[in-house]
Amino acid sequence: MTLHDTMQQLGKNARAAAKAMAKARTAQKNQALHSMADLLAIQQDNLLKENEKDLTAGRERGLNTALLDRLALNPERIHAMAEGLRQIANLADPVGEISHLRYQPSGIQVGKMRVPLGVIGIIYESRPNVTADAAGLGLKSGNAVILRGGSEAIHSNLAIAACIHTGLTDSGLPAEAVQVVKTTDRAAVGELLRMQAYIDVIVPRGGKGLIERVSAEAKIPVIKHLDGLCHVYIDAKADLDKAVAVAYNAKTQRYGTCNTMETLLVHQAIAPSVLPLLVDKYQQAGVELRGCAKTQAFDPKILPATEQDWATEYLAPILAIRVVDDFDQAMAHIDQYSSRHTDAIVTEDWSLAQRFLTEVDSSSVMVNASTRFADGFEYGLGAEIGISTDKIHARGPVGLEGLTSQKFIVLGNGHIR
Amino acid sequence: MTLHDTMQQLGKNARAAAKAMAKARTAQKNQALHSMADLLAIQQDNLLKENEKDLTAGRERGLNTALLDRLALNPERIHAMAEGLRQIANLADPVGEISHLRYQPSGIQVGKMRVPLGVIGIIYESRPNVTADAAGLGLKSGNAVILRGGSEAIHSNLAIAACIHTGLTDSGLPAEAVQVVKTTDRAAVGELLRMQAYIDVIVPRGGKGLIERVSAEAKIPVIKHLDGLCHVYIDAKADLDKAVAVAYNAKTQRYGTCNTMETLLVHQAIAPSVLPLLVDKYQQAGVELRGCAKTQAFDPKILPATEQDWATEYLAPILAIRVVDDFDQAMAHIDQYSSRHTDAIVTEDWSLAQRFLTEVDSSSVMVNASTRFADGFEYGLGAEIGISTDKIHARGPVGLEGLTSQKFIVLGNGHIR
Repeated sequence: MTLHDTMQQLGKNARAAAKAMAKARTAQKNQALHSMADLLAIQQDNLLKENEKDLTAGRERGLNTALLDRLALNPERIHAMAEGLRQIANLADPVGEISHLRYQPSGIQVGKMRVPLGVIGIIYESRPNVTADAAGLGLKSGNAVILRGGSEAIHSNLAIAACIHTGLTDSGLPAEAVQVVKTTDRAAVGELLRMQAYIDVIVPRGGKGLIERVSAEAKIPVIKHLDGLCHVYIDAKADLDKAVAVAYNAKTQRYGTCNTMETLLVHQAIAPSVLPLLVDKYQQAGVELRGCAKTQAFDPKILPATEQDWATEYLAPILAIRVVDDFDQAMAHIDQYSSRHTDAIVTEDWSLAQRFLTEVDSSSVMVNASTRFADGFEYGLGAEIGISTDKIHARGPVGLEGLTSQKFIVLGNGHIR
Repeated sequence: MTLHDTMQQLGKNARAAAKAMAKARTAQKNQALHSMADLLAIQQDNLLKENEKDLTAGRERGLNTALLDRLALNPERIHAMAEGLRQIANLADPVGEISHLRYQPSGIQVGKMRVPLGVIGIIYESRPNVTADAAGLGLKSGNAVILRGGSEAIHSNLAIAACIHTGLTDSGLPAEAVQVVKTTDRAAVGELLRMQAYIDVIVPRGGKGLIERVSAEAKIPVIKHLDGLCHVYIDAKADLDKAVAVAYNAKTQRYGTCNTMETLLVHQAIAPSVLPLLVDKYQQAGVELRGCAKTQAFDPKILPATEQDWATEYLAPILAIRVVDDFDQAMAHIDQYSSRHTDAIVTEDWSLAQRFLTEVDSSSVMVNASTRFADGFEYGLGAEIGISTDKIHARGPVGLEGLTSQKFIVLGNGHIR
């Protein structure tokens, strides 16, 4: 079979499995999730053995330490994967939820019923735990999923998939509800992106190169975010303690995540009181600071920020700082440079907080809270398949609900127009 | 200026206007809608004069009677347009609605705020009233719109647009919130479909040729439905009166609409009692019937239905009828041939009604009601920009809510992770 035929067959299998999954009972889906979690624990030694094959191949190919770390499984990580599946089992089933069922003047009742999207294609890179997470979320939301992980993790992914398949079939669900693309041929991604007859939505998870490729090539709707260039704006009326806490946490709690602050904006009236405190804390944490001229005046060690800095997602211990004249200048800066992922204001001014919430056009907008909260778990979604900065369908962290749609239902009693 | 530059400028204007529209107060938007409605009445003579130019040109070009009828304005139609705008003014403003605001274990409050999509491109054919409808819905939902109507209606559309612009500016809103593409060059549509930097969603309204072109070429999300191949299934346990009423109404109330029934499925057990009644009524109404062999047995005048008939959206007084063995065969038929627009069951059997509602994967699924109800007004949306058979974002009739999105808002008090 050619690659094209293999992938088409995968699509057909997924479409057939999606029909069964849409009808699957909640208890059946939960049983499958618990069974998968049990199997991951039972199969731990085998998972570690298969993962070692990937690690060995990775070392031979000269993967760097960070990539090898992402690729590595260990008992803790396997336990965390299993726990993740059990948590998904504990979430409410979104499928079949009926809302807004109201009588209309004609006498019919009209409402909305939540239904699965159908088939979800997930394209990701080295972390093998995504295989379990994505399978669990897809399954619980009543979809079939096609998983295409990084070629460097293929042995780990197939070993995890074996546990998933047993969990599915043990619970009376079709094994094809979760399919892992077995070939590591890169052309398989291109095939997936053109399978609009069999795939309803594509979720890419990984670096910018992957996301850009998927966005450019996909003939299917994509749930994605490209950049996480997040801002914190400390307003003139900010509480000093809150400002320091939020701005420090948003940068330093983790450097490599998409919801980490990359640019700090400070109102000129509060800059003399807040910046010396923050500059000191950042420098103690080893954060390289790059500022506008007004910012540099506070410390000779602050490097000059260029136009390029305002547009850069560092994903590293580097922070751009700009002192702004007023709220409007901060808003204009955010409007120009934000990647529309997450932006926050620190202020005690009620009217400005309201304006910020209303006018900032980002997937998450925050008042007096760290941008690091932009996350499916922190938002109470239970888990997330990814974060969307698109405006259509799902925006912000995407949980089970984002993997579903709503159809209209009409209940009559022989009603006609 | 080249066409490309003209269209890019339109996009830039729309993007700028969208920012102002997102902040516009509800009262301001409603005032603009009422002002537009007033102006349409005041400008009636001018609208009729401009419309006459289009009609004359259309007659010269040899447009058929149906097309000329769609193109024609008259005092009643102008009044209906104005009333449509006033009705939109009376609808609740969707923008800024905050929902699901809940405390999370970390102490932050997380909720969703409804926000405009931004810029909506609407591509439509001959009916000039779409200009007013689409402008009204776009405006009320806080978006900027770019309207590209049929070239045959250009004078009418520009005259309506003049009323819209005055309504906007009289209310302190930017005239660029509603822009009509002035050129009738068909290449302008291609330009619109590639303006992903300036347009957030495209809504095509018109014949299949238009929708197919837009779907194939658009680099922007599209809200659309391609076909309306709707089914009514009369189950063995159907109430005879309801079955006759619903099946007759679903076909004959209007022939040319997307929610008209095109295929009737009848359980073999009820066929002998229901089909003679229905066949008689359809024939009296002049509906040409094409049936399977079992259907033909009921009347010699019923033509044979071919495979092609099950797959055809007639949009005409023609109906395909199939007698099925059981519920499962009806479900399989719908699964194979439905365009996923609207399908209905007539039954008194509670369990089968539940199965039909749950398992039929269409944008509207109905029990004991005519498919003709699948409509934004009948569903209480107040108005509709179109109907979507896609699964992503909006499904079924799309009203104001479908022209909005939700962002997350996070309210803290200095909260950090």
